[in-house]
Amino acid sequence: MPQFNDTELTAAVIKSFEETPDPRVKFLMEELVKSLHEYVRKTDLTFDEWTYAIDVLTRTGQKCTSSRQEFILLSDVLGVSMLVDAVNHREREGATETTVLGPFYVGEHKPMPHGTDVSPGLSGESMFVQSRVTDLKGQPLAGVPVDIWHADDDGFYDSQKPNYETRGPSSRARFITDADGRFFFRTILPCSYPIPTDGPVGEMILQTRRHPMRPAHVHFLVDAPGYEPLVTHVFIEGDRYLDTDVVFGVKDELVAKIEKRTDALMPDGKPASAPWHLMSYDFRMRPGKGTAPKPMLTVTEDA
Amino acid sequence: MPQFNDTELTAAVIKSFEETPDPRVKFLMEELVKSLHEYVRKTDLTFDEWTYAIDVLTRTGQKCTSSRQEFILLSDVLGVSMLVDAVNHREREGATETTVLGPFYVGEHKPMPHGTDVSPGLSGESMFVQSRVTDLKGQPLAGVPVDIWHADDDGFYDSQKPNYETRGPSSRARFITDADGRFFFRTILPCSYPIPTDGPVGEMILQTRRHPMRPAHVHFLVDAPGYEPLVTHVFIEGDRYLDTDVVFGVKDELVAKIEKRTDALMPDGKPASAPWHLMSYDFRMRPGKGTAPKPMLTVTEDA
Repeated sequence: MPQFNDTELTAAVIKSFEETPDPRVKFLMEELVKSLHEYVRKTDLTFDEWTYAIDVLTRTGQKCTSSRQEFILLSDVLGVSMLVDAVNHREREGATETTVLGPFYVGEHKPMPHGTDVSPGLSGESMFVQSRVTDLKGQPLAGVPVDIWHADDDGFYDSQKPNYETRGPSSRARFITDADGRFFFRTILPCSYPIPTDGPVGEMILQTRRHPMRPAHVHFLVDAPGYEPLVTHVFIEGDRYLDTDVVFGVKDELVAKIEKRTDALMPDGKPASAPWHLMSYDFRMRPGKGTAPKPMLTVTEDA
Repeated sequence: MPQFNDTELTAAVIKSFEETPDPRVKFLMEELVKSLHEYVRKTDLTFDEWTYAIDVLTRTGQKCTSSRQEFILLSDVLGVSMLVDAVNHREREGATETTVLGPFYVGEHKPMPHGTDVSPGLSGESMFVQSRVTDLKGQPLAGVPVDIWHADDDGFYDSQKPNYETRGPSSRARFITDADGRFFFRTILPCSYPIPTDGPVGEMILQTRRHPMRPAHVHFLVDAPGYEPLVTHVFIEGDRYLDTDVVFGVKDELVAKIEKRTDALMPDGKPASAPWHLMSYDFRMRPGKGTAPKPMLTVTEDA
């Protein structure tokens, strides 16, 4: 009879997965068991610590709603999301660098005409964003859907605010690249913001004296058929949190110099009402397969 | 500026915890980051796999209710609970072996007089349980509360059945040891049973072709002041699942030979109505501190 004690336990748990039909699942479960057991042994984890971990994981799951994904946030602040991104994008060949999707993607956005102000009525400094999507040789990719989203001047995404479902999106849109691979739109300059700290992830951030801030950025999801879907941000140069992004999402190449302009007309020839900012950033796509990430906000409540 | 890429990322995440005031928390977080990152690197975890993991963790949290703790169940079937138990009980010095608390402990039970039938009206074969609680030298420990609980003949705990709150406990009670350290009660012979398979843990068990069964057992929680709280089971000899317990809770010493008896009287001198079983098992307590585990079923819904 097996003795499930300290020394024999790990082998017994690994053996329990020996009939797993899918070899990849078998490997992932075996490595998970090894990793979890090594952690418990190395730390001599106490009951109170285990109990605390069970409680944190439970509350993290229960914090997830149709507009919030606390487990993605936890993965983000532990650098796991960024590492998964890294190991899946080791070969760039000159393609634009990737970064995390983040928990505020809500799925395919509503297509809008080029030049649309995606943040009408919102306070903040005006910004014009212009971009071009090309292949690795610089050839334009036409008809490509590009989802964009960013936090507002108050540091919140539209989906974090009350009555999001009835108000509809703001600072969130889809554009389709034109024949020359270009798209452009009006918005406001995003600012740095804290991740939500009213849940278990926030508790951890506060207990460990980390700051909860992300440097200002705009999210882009570029999904061209025949190319690897590109999930990335463009960061605003000079932000004080670029070096200590709470989710470790920054890469040098993704930091853009935003020009402050006083021209009376914006690049599409329409009038500018005040000093405005110009973000110019192009995306280079790498041939490949893959499907664009799906949002993970809809939670099945079958408890 | 840091490049949060594949090679530099882990060091950057570890560095983010450098201001953590509590050295133990700092150590646990640093080791957690190392462990998670090593897992992602070693497995080259894909986005789909990461997404699946996020979804499973979310649903595991959402499956937890006031009468169910799916994360403890997950910890149990991965052998983590049993390993935490093991690393915290390396020195036994002759004390009774420990095993997992399990997810069906609901907190302190209602004290009952010795000899009480804790499973009145339930189908199943009759069993008389007699036990004595002593220190390591065999000296009786009097006035010690002992919580007991077990699954019924249908494989379910009382807390898993509908209307538990209004019906109240069955096959679940507390006894206080007498001056000679003894306690005894009537119940039914428990049977082997499957862990709940209607949640994420069940999905994993089925996908990996494990069986979901636990060998028949009675839970005991003995909490004597000045002694280490003892959380254990007594297993029924001959059960076909002793070698492959889905939660790896079995230890040789905890398997009891249950005698089949036909005596007309039970050990307390009261009549037995049919063939009955006798479970005799004594508990040896080790001096020490510690508080008895609390149940982890009450979930704060602050989403």
